[in-house]
Amino acid sequence: MNTSFYFVLLLFALSNKRYNFAKIFLCCAVLQRSIDMDFRTGANKTNERVHLEPSQLREKHISSFQGESEEKEKDTNSEILVANFSNIYASDLLPTRNGEELTDQFLLEVVEILLNYIKKTYDGKSKVLDFHHPHQLLEGLEGFSLELRDQPEPLEQILVDCRDTLKYGVKTGHPRYFNQLSSGLDIVGLAGEWLSAAANTNMFTYEIAPVFVVMEEILLKKMHEMVGWGETDADGIFSPGGTISNLYSVLVARYKRFPEIKTKGMAALPHIALFVSEHSHYSVKKAAAVLGIGTDNVIAVKCDERGKMIPSDLEAKILKVKRQDHIPLYVSATAGTTVYGAFDPLDNIADICEKYGLWIHVDAAWGGGLLMSRKHSFKLNGIERANSVTWNPHKLMGVPLQCSAFLVCEKGLLQACNQMCAGYLFQPDKQYDTTYDTGDKTIQCGRHVDVFKLWLMWKAKGTRGFEILINKSLELAEYLYKELNSRENFELVFDAEPELTNVCFWYIPPNLRRIPNGPEREKLLHQVAPKIKARMIEEGTTMVSYQPHGDKVNFFRMVFSNPATRKSDVDFLLEEIERLGKDL
Amino acid sequence: MNTSFYFVLLLFALSNKRYNFAKIFLCCAVLQRSIDMDFRTGANKTNERVHLEPSQLREKHISSFQGESEEKEKDTNSEILVANFSNIYASDLLPTRNGEELTDQFLLEVVEILLNYIKKTYDGKSKVLDFHHPHQLLEGLEGFSLELRDQPEPLEQILVDCRDTLKYGVKTGHPRYFNQLSSGLDIVGLAGEWLSAAANTNMFTYEIAPVFVVMEEILLKKMHEMVGWGETDADGIFSPGGTISNLYSVLVARYKRFPEIKTKGMAALPHIALFVSEHSHYSVKKAAAVLGIGTDNVIAVKCDERGKMIPSDLEAKILKVKRQDHIPLYVSATAGTTVYGAFDPLDNIADICEKYGLWIHVDAAWGGGLLMSRKHSFKLNGIERANSVTWNPHKLMGVPLQCSAFLVCEKGLLQACNQMCAGYLFQPDKQYDTTYDTGDKTIQCGRHVDVFKLWLMWKAKGTRGFEILINKSLELAEYLYKELNSRENFELVFDAEPELTNVCFWYIPPNLRRIPNGPEREKLLHQVAPKIKARMIEEGTTMVSYQPHGDKVNFFRMVFSNPATRKSDVDFLLEEIERLGKDL
Repeated sequence: MNTSFYFVLLLFALSNKRYNFAKIFLCCAVLQRSIDMDFRTGANKTNERVHLEPSQLREKHISSFQGESEEKEKDTNSEILVANFSNIYASDLLPTRNGEELTDQFLLEVVEILLNYIKKTYDGKSKVLDFHHPHQLLEGLEGFSLELRDQPEPLEQILVDCRDTLKYGVKTGHPRYFNQLSSGLDIVGLAGEWLSAAANTNMFTYEIAPVFVVMEEILLKKMHEMVGWGETDADGIFSPGGTISNLYSVLVARYKRFPEIKTKGMAALPHIALFVSEHSHYSVKKAAAVLGIGTDNVIAVKCDERGKMIPSDLEAKILKVKRQDHIPLYVSATAGTTVYGAFDPLDNIADICEKYGLWIHVDAAWGGGLLMSRKHSFKLNGIERANSVTWNPHKLMGVPLQCSAFLVCEKGLLQACNQMCAGYLFQPDKQYDTTYDTGDKTIQCGRHVDVFKLWLMWKAKGTRGFEILINKSLELAEYLYKELNSRENFELVFDAEPELTNVCFWYIPPNLRRIPNGPEREKLLHQVAPKIKARMIEEGTTMVSYQPHGDKVNFFRMVFSNPATRKSDVDFLLEEIERLGKDL
Repeated sequence: MNTSFYFVLLLFALSNKRYNFAKIFLCCAVLQRSIDMDFRTGANKTNERVHLEPSQLREKHISSFQGESEEKEKDTNSEILVANFSNIYASDLLPTRNGEELTDQFLLEVVEILLNYIKKTYDGKSKVLDFHHPHQLLEGLEGFSLELRDQPEPLEQILVDCRDTLKYGVKTGHPRYFNQLSSGLDIVGLAGEWLSAAANTNMFTYEIAPVFVVMEEILLKKMHEMVGWGETDADGIFSPGGTISNLYSVLVARYKRFPEIKTKGMAALPHIALFVSEHSHYSVKKAAAVLGIGTDNVIAVKCDERGKMIPSDLEAKILKVKRQDHIPLYVSATAGTTVYGAFDPLDNIADICEKYGLWIHVDAAWGGGLLMSRKHSFKLNGIERANSVTWNPHKLMGVPLQCSAFLVCEKGLLQACNQMCAGYLFQPDKQYDTTYDTGDKTIQCGRHVDVFKLWLMWKAKGTRGFEILINKSLELAEYLYKELNSRENFELVFDAEPELTNVCFWYIPPNLRRIPNGPEREKLLHQVAPKIKARMIEEGTTMVSYQPHGDKVNFFRMVFSNPATRKSDVDFLLEEIERLGKDL
């Protein structure tokens, strides 16, 4: 029965002055209404939107949790869940017959947990992390046991586990999380990942991933265009991370010069050498180890004080290798080094590569995003002369992990280098254009769909939207640089305006300022950053990375890539470092 | 104002016989209630659960869409969206100030699309796919343009794009999708992926992925135990797919015997050889190409009619290599071949490896799941003698893509083989046990969180839950085998009970049955499967793969790994093949 029905009867009774009947109908209406009330605060509030569920869900969140401690919140929530899922198991969900409703309810409970987490992530006042040691997690924490059993656990427990997994993790989207080159939590990108997970397919053939395979082609063309290669010969692949993308570059460069490598191996090749700068990422060395080239054959080229490769040293080292009758094969120039955020002089390096016939790869994993910015893209001038490029949208562009593109200028090389023509996967007698079966271009077989989130973000932001975010991150780096210059307890590792968002600095505690420069002070300074970082993690207020580099003792490396970060967060970081380190 | 307020006034007026006032209050209550009605069908229905949103969302779905065509549904939905998101952009979402509500609404709209997709996926009557050629997708379909622009598009368009991406994709969880070894859409696994996406972190250090790193250790220990190695020396890594896991096996085997490979490269090594069966996956050859060993040095060992490696041929080939003064280094035995689903005789192969000092790897990417089944695990007897194992939970165990484990018996090898000790990532002076910084064990740097979904599914199902699913898939394979034996238009590629869920067969159209065995019939039969498959894809009713193999012309390979599949779906497949192929 609907309350409206009783209202009609009530009106009828009133208009006929049958007041006793009217009272009965009114009681019925009230009773019915109390059944309809949903036991839920705020469910009947007026709402301006056509779709009410989202905000109702949100209102419920707020009304249940606002102003309560994290511990209390967890308990409240657990109690509610007991009513729902304590006797329900995974086997009750789809594909079990009639499992539809429970499936929806379960997934929406999970989503509610995630929405709550997202809000906390963006709440600058919440903690970045709630640190526990490995042995504590292994032993189990307040009902959070990681142990796996023979018997299933009810979905209620699964939901509690989801909440606990997030609780004891790190909020990498928090405005004060500065620990890695990848940070932030883009909402459209997240939606893209959720959809990719539901689509649950594999990039190896067009047959089973038609839309995603075409999206990959479109993204690669777009990125080629931005690199400055033109569209025609677009080739490349999205790979599981920048290190694998850089591995592809060495693999393809080697194959291009010595195609016999594929069948005969390194035994058929002369002694080859690869060149990278001292400041480059370790991935080229790793590739040399994996590919059977050997790390000894990766020659480190000197950098200037700012961390940029010195072209004359590159040329000298190429000549030295040639004098040893070895083959200088490949240079990896970095556009945005990991620690200093430096850009190697690409044009000068390309000149040398042309002169001596070397493959030039540009590792723009970190700095590639600047190609989106009309203001900053000049820093990558010369990239159009590269033979291959690594560019990770999961870094400066804020795409969820992982999303790394390996781009190669010459079409067909990847395919020739890697194809094995497995009959069970790449049947040549399919009814569609099998050049879209891209799986044989890769060193993988199955490949995760990493393109959709990037494609969706690009649609939602436009190139200009990425530009705005990236420019903003660079402004924050400039702001930090100026702040550091003006504060007496901080010292810059190198005094130059940031080219990317990296800013490297020491905090000098008062006690240390009294000690003159020299080995004693260096030794003490080396211990400052780790101690502050340890305290920072224990308190969970912010996260920033530190490292030694070359002859420099441990220093902090700040990077910006999170659109949630504001100047006040930068101020907070500096004050927090002072607060945590002033007694050292 | 709340309706209850007017009810109280109404009651008061009635009890005091102020009927005109009563009428006014009643009108107010009715008016207020109409405002509260949420414009939403079914919103006020009684519901037994404490949490109403999930089922309300579902009810709305049903009431809007039930009984309507796909096209209509899309239009209906689009109209609703116009009201919501036509003037709202990604830049209005978090981290924009006050973006919380819109963020929730947007994500819940996406989730609604996904829940609808999940229901369709599990609905046997829906199509598996809606096929379009690459050029059609590139040109754009009914408002679905893949093109990327400078300017942002409103979130309304983004939601439409999400719906279209799914519409033109392939439902890999559909009960009649049999195309790959990975199929199905596990709900708890999906929830795990959604959470991993929201956590958006990286497996390289404990610092930023504490819970996930510990979960990986727990999973590896559990899998070690099931392989039969015992817990103590558990080592391994989750990698982006079985091919990369198999690459790890060759990499580690080579390093174990020749640690100088890392620095000196293949130039410092003698001529080495790897052994795999004719029926093995192409990944070992791919690894040989990548690692600089060369595909010529991968020796194919003969198989019997059932697809199992012949140990005497392995031994003969090892001896032949030794006579050439090459070093036989490594054997990859397969536990569940890709096409036939065959298990190599692991114990016999292990005997030979022990005798000649070869590394034995077991590629159980596909068959590893059987270790979960007390009934079928004997098929992997001998796996406990392996030096390393590949096991992909994303195949038989139904974990969402990707989830592949590389397990290695000797602790520390992976680390020694791959570590580069990057100072910026693996600081030795951290405050916690840095052996949990697992990133230096891998050939990647950043690594996606692939463990959480598996961990969560294991919690939710228990080992016994996986066992039930796997046993059920094997029963379906047996059922299909018996059906094929009893139907005169089908022919088995090899007549043996399935050991895994692969069943290989030809469909012989009536016209072909009249032609005697011989090259003419073979030539025609070779064209049958591709033609049927092309029609199948055009109609979108089901999907099964085909391939030639050795001297066998194109045949269908059925595999079961989807818990949604029932015997009726098997019957459907056979009838559909007959329907589509009887005129060939």
